[in-house]
Amino acid sequence: MTKNTTQPKIIYLDYAAATPVGNKVLAAMAPFFSGAFYNPSAVYKAARQVSAALNTARAEVAMVLGAKPLEIIFTAGGTEANNLAIYGVMSQFPAANIIVSAIEHESVLAPAGRYDCRLAPVHPDGLVDVDALRNLIDDHTAMISVMYANNEIGTIEPLPAVSHLITEVRRHRRLIGNDLPLYFHSDACQAGNYLDVHVDRLGVDLMTLNGGKVYGPKQSGALYVSRHAVINPQILGGGQEMGHRSGTENVAGAVGFSVALKLAQLDSKTGSYAMKHLQDRFIDEISRLLANALINGSKSHRLPSNVHITLPGTDNERLLFQLDELGILAASGSACSASEQEPSHVLRALGHNADYARSSLRFSMGRDTTLSDLHRTVKVLKDLAG
Amino acid sequence: MTKNTTQPKIIYLDYAAATPVGNKVLAAMAPFFSGAFYNPSAVYKAARQVSAALNTARAEVAMVLGAKPLEIIFTAGGTEANNLAIYGVMSQFPAANIIVSAIEHESVLAPAGRYDCRLAPVHPDGLVDVDALRNLIDDHTAMISVMYANNEIGTIEPLPAVSHLITEVRRHRRLIGNDLPLYFHSDACQAGNYLDVHVDRLGVDLMTLNGGKVYGPKQSGALYVSRHAVINPQILGGGQEMGHRSGTENVAGAVGFSVALKLAQLDSKTGSYAMKHLQDRFIDEISRLLANALINGSKSHRLPSNVHITLPGTDNERLLFQLDELGILAASGSACSASEQEPSHVLRALGHNADYARSSLRFSMGRDTTLSDLHRTVKVLKDLAG
Repeated sequence: MTKNTTQPKIIYLDYAAATPVGNKVLAAMAPFFSGAFYNPSAVYKAARQVSAALNTARAEVAMVLGAKPLEIIFTAGGTEANNLAIYGVMSQFPAANIIVSAIEHESVLAPAGRYDCRLAPVHPDGLVDVDALRNLIDDHTAMISVMYANNEIGTIEPLPAVSHLITEVRRHRRLIGNDLPLYFHSDACQAGNYLDVHVDRLGVDLMTLNGGKVYGPKQSGALYVSRHAVINPQILGGGQEMGHRSGTENVAGAVGFSVALKLAQLDSKTGSYAMKHLQDRFIDEISRLLANALINGSKSHRLPSNVHITLPGTDNERLLFQLDELGILAASGSACSASEQEPSHVLRALGHNADYARSSLRFSMGRDTTLSDLHRTVKVLKDLAG
Repeated sequence: MTKNTTQPKIIYLDYAAATPVGNKVLAAMAPFFSGAFYNPSAVYKAARQVSAALNTARAEVAMVLGAKPLEIIFTAGGTEANNLAIYGVMSQFPAANIIVSAIEHESVLAPAGRYDCRLAPVHPDGLVDVDALRNLIDDHTAMISVMYANNEIGTIEPLPAVSHLITEVRRHRRLIGNDLPLYFHSDACQAGNYLDVHVDRLGVDLMTLNGGKVYGPKQSGALYVSRHAVINPQILGGGQEMGHRSGTENVAGAVGFSVALKLAQLDSKTGSYAMKHLQDRFIDEISRLLANALINGSKSHRLPSNVHITLPGTDNERLLFQLDELGILAASGSACSASEQEPSHVLRALGHNADYARSSLRFSMGRDTTLSDLHRTVKVLKDLAG
């Protein structure tokens, strides 16, 4: 055996960007590649069994959300689901307006930007300003989209408060005879591992879920659409997914997603508790060893897996490169905007400037993260930037 | 060991609806589920290796098509690619018109129907009437979409003739100073296994490919878009796929699709020859043993894998059920429209009525189809309907 001193152990701290597919998930997917490969729309028994497996997956996802199976539309991931939600509602009311929080993912901001779109500001801690949001609503508002948990800074947004506000507005509209619907959509892509995703408790009409963030396959996911809501399909064709989203179904993906979501939710309470412990220690060590470090986003309303910091005066691209050389994989913001070379719109919405954003790092923890990984990360950060 | 007389060997004759994922394809996909699972947009080396694998897949697909890598947009299957092609072009010219053949797949017909859409008729043999198509073109035509091979009746459409016509129209437009582009799109979902998909030889500007029909994974595929063509993205967000199609990339799917397409094309000439032999024998036996049987679609311009027949006076739903009971899996039309319970629009475009369509069956052969499968199928058909 040769001593290997050049390849450090990989410390992966970018679970918010991608999660490995879990073993049980992969095992559940396996039969649908080469064995039960039949087109679920075909009429013979073998295909009807595949169709039944797809519907079981739909029922499983529905059960996790406290929804009905027909309220679950399988999509090729979170981005498509966000696009479908916004196009699906707003294309019915092209003269109406939509309000989204200023810290939404690009896959909400960009499709919303095709309509009269108003940005709800956030407080400096990254929580949406519900009073400011209220003031943006008028008689022509058809949709409000506020994410469940932010993908960069990990803040958990006050969905029940937004839902309460929407209920008030609906009541007012009934009184004045305004029959424009007001739908509440939430992008819950980052929520599946640690938060309650029961749709009635959250008060959402539409909700996006993403398999690739909960140890399921990439480009799997779903849009929940309440049976009381009406949406237009965006992708047209054979009429699959109850007419809401055409295309031969990715049965392996849907089954994998359903298993992944179910496992994530089964483990969410204990997993969240364990993760919170790691997060507290991580933040504590950062604060002790990196005197200048600033923690971004609310500490109390926060995913237990996210630690987002700013090290003033540092350059995050350089730091990420150096961390990578030492086997520590982290991010500057979302993986999507990371490739766009633009300073984070999320941090700017919190009131920070581009320099601040360029000195910021996101660490997102997951199933394999250990306390010693975090010790090492803080130690390395101190060496590099302390 | 017990003798099993109740479970007949399955004879699968619905390859046009779905193909099993090939072993080499699955092996190529495997590393990207749990090992190299990183988000291709992330900045660390491990993610850049995943991004490199994605770009290799892109380059492989491009090479098969005689295209450039940046002309390949990976999509979640053929339906999405068809929607992107039509929305991508036509949303730029909402006042323009689009001409599509009357026998296109629903995923072309439906998005085209959102614009001023003209249907080009087909001859009774299922080949598009190029003269009639020519007469539909006016100065406001921005797009023509004619499929490469029909999914129901297997006809191979005269793409070079359409391309030639389009070149003429473009020349005329330059002369009269009309700068509206005229783009040629082809849905080649059914072509990958047996036909040449070189884009320059076909003369297409946009072309749809589908992994799920070439022994690749479901909801994998691509839209080829010539670098001379401009399209709007339909799904917005992180700007993946050169800004044409957002969403964290399905790396396993893209890699699987690229391997499947490459293998299919490597084998297309010999595979086509072998399949043609089976097809000839199948048609010959049908003609000999089923006196009333009519073969639909051109015999000379036809996928070697497709045999589409009408047995006047029979009911295809009943026949499919009986065939299924005897282990023979076939289809009445496309799997998509099959579930919609409507008589095939393709057969109606050929001049047949609903009764005729309801007496029609599609057999589509593939890698595991043997001559004895076809013998048995004809024998069973004769017993049931002869």
